[in-house]
Amino acid sequence: MSTDQADDRTMVGIAGAGQLARMTCLAAWPLGISVAVLGSPAEPSAGVCHRLVEGDWHNAEDVAALGAASGVVTLENEFVDAPALVAVEDAGTPVRPRPGTVGVIQDKADQKERLAGAGIPVPRFAVASTEAEVEALGRDLGWPLMLKARRLGYDGRGNALAESMADVPDALERLDRGEGVLVEEHVPFSAELAAMVARSSREELVYPVVETVQKDHVCHEVTTPVALAPGLEDEARRIALASAQAAESIGVMGVEMFLLDDRVVVNELAPRPHNSGHYSIEACETSQFENHLRGVLDLPLGPADLRAGGAAMVNLLGSYSAPSHHRTEEAMAVPGAHVHLYDKAEVRPGRKMGHVTALGESAESALATARRAAGLVRL
Amino acid sequence: MSTDQADDRTMVGIAGAGQLARMTCLAAWPLGISVAVLGSPAEPSAGVCHRLVEGDWHNAEDVAALGAASGVVTLENEFVDAPALVAVEDAGTPVRPRPGTVGVIQDKADQKERLAGAGIPVPRFAVASTEAEVEALGRDLGWPLMLKARRLGYDGRGNALAESMADVPDALERLDRGEGVLVEEHVPFSAELAAMVARSSREELVYPVVETVQKDHVCHEVTTPVALAPGLEDEARRIALASAQAAESIGVMGVEMFLLDDRVVVNELAPRPHNSGHYSIEACETSQFENHLRGVLDLPLGPADLRAGGAAMVNLLGSYSAPSHHRTEEAMAVPGAHVHLYDKAEVRPGRKMGHVTALGESAESALATARRAAGLVRL
Repeated sequence: MSTDQADDRTMVGIAGAGQLARMTCLAAWPLGISVAVLGSPAEPSAGVCHRLVEGDWHNAEDVAALGAASGVVTLENEFVDAPALVAVEDAGTPVRPRPGTVGVIQDKADQKERLAGAGIPVPRFAVASTEAEVEALGRDLGWPLMLKARRLGYDGRGNALAESMADVPDALERLDRGEGVLVEEHVPFSAELAAMVARSSREELVYPVVETVQKDHVCHEVTTPVALAPGLEDEARRIALASAQAAESIGVMGVEMFLLDDRVVVNELAPRPHNSGHYSIEACETSQFENHLRGVLDLPLGPADLRAGGAAMVNLLGSYSAPSHHRTEEAMAVPGAHVHLYDKAEVRPGRKMGHVTALGESAESALATARRAAGLVRL
Repeated sequence: MSTDQADDRTMVGIAGAGQLARMTCLAAWPLGISVAVLGSPAEPSAGVCHRLVEGDWHNAEDVAALGAASGVVTLENEFVDAPALVAVEDAGTPVRPRPGTVGVIQDKADQKERLAGAGIPVPRFAVASTEAEVEALGRDLGWPLMLKARRLGYDGRGNALAESMADVPDALERLDRGEGVLVEEHVPFSAELAAMVARSSREELVYPVVETVQKDHVCHEVTTPVALAPGLEDEARRIALASAQAAESIGVMGVEMFLLDDRVVVNELAPRPHNSGHYSIEACETSQFENHLRGVLDLPLGPADLRAGGAAMVNLLGSYSAPSHHRTEEAMAVPGAHVHLYDKAEVRPGRKMGHVTALGESAESALATARRAAGLVRL
């Protein structure tokens, strides 16, 4: 446990130092909240944190060092080894969300079981270790089938869509790390949705429902509000909240959902600030990053109301591999375009280098602005 | 001239390290703009800048060191010695706003002469060095008279309201530093107004007109929009823009004005971000801090449109002299209250320790929220 300076300020320690940590740090300064990050000096949050703990979140000893330097430890990714987080708590520093929440979410099968057990709609699923088991599931759930590594997959890595048994041997080989794989029925969704949920020990609230559009399995565009049949928006918010409650999240949690014609099912949970929530910096009364800090520190949550008719975010993804300059001047000339760069030294194809958010009278007009500006940023 | 890292990024150097520099730094990070500040490690911007140049802006050598470390130098206060800024330009680093602008503004008599010469309405004024000269002005301009030190006065220091000749000897003694004092007619204003003006080499725009309420000569509350007779709002904006043009400002400039029954006159100019513009962080499409960076770097300016029906800012001023904790938790529980603390270690009575901004459907409702939250912050 560590306090900062003479005024008993709790140091929030983030087990990571990337762009989510960066944006959390930026939200912290005006509130007088101090944030430590775990990473290296070249990472997106190193220049803007209160304190950099040099190390690697994959390394339990480094996570322990972060714990020793912090009053509470939180995450910017869900892959930190849960036992390492338990050790931080055992050594006296609270971890929020709790290691139990992180552990359940880290294993996609456990995550699905937790949600299903709480009565939350999810794709039909089971765990399979052999081709025979997958074949049996194919008869039950139909084809194609979605096979997923139970742990450590993100942005589509760790997933394989098996059109038939012919795809299964390679998929199992790639994705089964000894505990089998998660097998889900294919969901013919009409759209992908998401909503951030903020929770403290005393309060909870749900952010606006957004639509997310992926490009090569990576989040590309986010818009709100979403044109949904009557009742479906409330249903999506209810399901998102129930998911966060089932996972016992603290701070913010991203709930990814599939929209079908007449219903919503939950896809994945992320127990930390999420790409689908970046729009909230300009678009909502309280950003996801600020509410993550508030929840983690058990401070009162701030309202998540949308401040404009519509909002849109477009990711700035690296498009070629040569090191390059960020040329944001043209994008900054687009009125109402809010550019966010992450200070990543190396551009790689598909790498999240920043994002652009725009507000507007509608989701469509906001998206037009954001797309125009994003198209002008040369990466 | 100095560039930062491999990507040719211009380092913006601020000749100061206080809260205005802090908020400028916070605006810079998402834009990928690097900011250096000149000051000490305990100052409000030291933790959040890209680079701290240790030194004192009163010291020409330290200002030169900032210049050597920066691609462009700018201000957070108007008292930096203009010759020191000229030396920075002579050594090869541009200063924006230009040293000439700073020099004209630093001398209140020169400032008034520049404005009057451009046809901008100002209180009637003259320079006086002797009691006899003041007495003659009293016959011309009436009593009371406002006497002002020509240089280095702010927040009411360097001002003296002389009700009669009896007050004049002490006032001259205190305020005349060898060049006489500025004498102005007393302005029986009904309200004090302000507007920020943003300018680059190619564009200019005016922020919303705000009303400012001072407490013991220090800015206390700011609200917008202001209930003004038809045409007066446009007149105030026109006058503010003309003032910035007359001063050839670059980046943002704060224009303080007096409202009389049927007209507006200019009081003071501040060639940098200003307390009356802090509300713009949440309330406007582009904050004053972001537009200051854009103007100084000659990037496209961002729109200054108000995003809500009304906005209000209340300063958090130190109320007692013992070192104290900032207790913001209660304020953070007020929905829609945006707390900004400046990380000043020492609380002094009347010292600007932070501010609270709220948006609302009207200036009045926003002010009610901001006042409620500000009242709860124990300093």
